Amino acid sequence: MNYELPLLQKLIGHFKKLPGVGEKTAQRLTFAVLDMQGGEVTDFAETLQQVKEKVRFCNRCGNLSEEETCRICNDRSRVKGVLCIVERPSDIYILERSGKYRGGYHVLHGVLSPLDGIGPGELNLSGLKKRVEEEEITELIIATNPSIEGDTTSLFILKMFEGKGVKVTRLARGIPLGSTLEFVDKGTISKALEGREPL
Amino acid sequence: MNYELPLLQKLIGHFKKLPGVGEKTAQRLTFAVLDMQGGEVTDFAETLQQVKEKVRFCNRCGNLSEEETCRICNDRSRVKGVLCIVERPSDIYILERSGKYRGGYHVLHGVLSPLDGIGPGELNLSGLKKRVEEEEITELIIATNPSIEGDTTSLFILKMFEGKGVKVTRLARGIPLGSTLEFVDKGTISKALEGREPL
Repeated sequence: MNYELPLLQKLIGHFKKLPGVGEKTAQRLTFAVLDMQGGEVTDFAETLQQVKEKVRFCNRCGNLSEEETCRICNDRSRVKGVLCIVERPSDIYILERSGKYRGGYHVLHGVLSPLDGIGPGELNLSGLKKRVEEEEITELIIATNPSIEGDTTSLFILKMFEGKGVKVTRLARGIPLGSTLEFVDKGTISKALEGREPL
Repeated sequence: MNYELPLLQKLIGHFKKLPGVGEKTAQRLTFAVLDMQGGEVTDFAETLQQVKEKVRFCNRCGNLSEEETCRICNDRSRVKGVLCIVERPSDIYILERSGKYRGGYHVLHGVLSPLDGIGPGELNLSGLKKRVEEEEITELIIATNPSIEGDTTSLFILKMFEGKGVKVTRLARGIPLGSTLEFVDKGTISKALEGREPL
């Protein structure tokens, strides 16, 4: 005889679809939901729905937004003429946390990956071209991940704007702060040597 | 200027209330929800609601159930006269996974913990007394956790049924399978020595 409760199994299944959640964690999360107050669960469920319904992409930069244009694009105090190009909206959060960057952003929503069928047409590149012209952009800072796909994408963008008077830079690669050489891979070490800076 | 999206922050907050989920994990889960299909999120939200609305405690043993009485209590093929006493419904899942036990269960919904204000009245003990009489129980297997509270509770139950013709046992303590002595704490080692078995 099967003692499983269909509803519980269904909720466990939903939790399991989330990244980093396996069978055991999904069970624990499901039991935690059972321990919650009813009102709290209702609010959780409604927030899930609303997030999916109301959060969309900014029509200018592709960042997450609850309005047509995102708060960063609407902020007149941000530096004009510089765009930081990222793979995903979540990367903006990470860059903003440093508090160091005050320019605009542009989200590609992916990286070039021919094996996965992702070519230039699948990325938000036409929007980038339009913005560079209309917003008189002078520098593009590429912040794609240091992967083969990320590097391919940054080279593609470099070529897109070759000879168009736009400076294209990318984030420095080197030893991460707080780390020790012992735990840094050889690729990073070699990048850090190449990019060594005068003291 | 604050760039946070209220809805996203709210969803991150809900995920953070789940056990083992910190700020970063909650953010990752929230971004994963944004990547899901709309229908999938709706189903997730509805399942959350339904689980909270429809899953309740079995009116006999206290296990989770979608009906008045749970599937284990309703299964006529289970062994009568033996009850395994557990702290929480999730413990039943764990015991069932072993496939070794075929009797009934009784969920206390907690353990005695005077410091937290949990006395015998807060546990499902009157229900246990009634069942032992009505169901002609001959053995109670106590499977509370091996903590001070779990042990106190098991002693309390032992006293409850002293001289009433009910055998009260508890799960053996010892070296867990697949472990090595090196990683077993001294308390467990000493229990394993006390409870040593002839080969």
